[in-house]
Amino acid sequence: MTGSMSRELISHIGIAVADLTAAIERFRLITGSKPDKITEVSDQKVRVAMFAHSPQGSSARIELVAPITPDSPVAAFLEKRGEGLHHVCIYVDDIRNTLAELKAAGVKLIDESPRVGAEGHLIAFVHPSSMHGVLVELEERGA
Amino acid sequence: MTGSMSRELISHIGIAVADLTAAIERFRLITGSKPDKITEVSDQKVRVAMFAHSPQGSSARIELVAPITPDSPVAAFLEKRGEGLHHVCIYVDDIRNTLAELKAAGVKLIDESPRVGAEGHLIAFVHPSSMHGVLVELEERGA
Repeated sequence: MTGSMSRELISHIGIAVADLTAAIERFRLITGSKPDKITEVSDQKVRVAMFAHSPQGSSARIELVAPITPDSPVAAFLEKRGEGLHHVCIYVDDIRNTLAELKAAGVKLIDESPRVGAEGHLIAFVHPSSMHGVLVELEERGA
Repeated sequence: MTGSMSRELISHIGIAVADLTAAIERFRLITGSKPDKITEVSDQKVRVAMFAHSPQGSSARIELVAPITPDSPVAAFLEKRGEGLHHVCIYVDDIRNTLAELKAAGVKLIDESPRVGAEGHLIAFVHPSSMHGVLVELEERGA
């Protein structure tokens, strides 16, 4: 551990919503601010509204995630669980090393190898069945 | 907004687990560290293991929450939903003001007035039915 003040544990949390506009309005009341940006992540077929108070990487963000098409993974989640907390993304220093440790411990991985996420970082998902019901995304901290 | 680097949006996320020891072991693999502390919150009848990389208030924490007794609110959650993401705690500058704004907007509140939480801060819960399925805890930022 570096021990620096800016060392974050959580990159962001993802919240699955059906109606992005309505959800933005509600979370604007809580956070006191509009989303910093709204983007489309085409491979997940979702639109994402990101709430942050600080430059990216310096504090944990809230991301509202809404499906664009019925075959989006988030549409499947909404169908099964309804709206709500969807995943938490945790920073790791060395994603390949963490994945190897998890695998050795018998943890079920969704991504056996890291892939490049929407924002250009290496990411990988860990299966909720091995993480006490939590869909965990790992994100390798930038250099 | 102060705009300072240390301005956090998320105080912590809470994860409901049945077996605290097993969950700590799994999240230790992900975070690369042991919990900073394990405490009992008697009015919620839970034990809480807190993972943090930084001094409290300087980065978002992960809290694993396990019921101590069958009548704990978290036991009811586990019964209904199973283990998983339970709530997100968001910092606000003026909790009374935020609660008034939410109420005026028709948001259902669990706590109409703030109360003192386990760590001495003013907190209040907002009902998930008004927050797209998310149990939101508000925490007034320390002076």
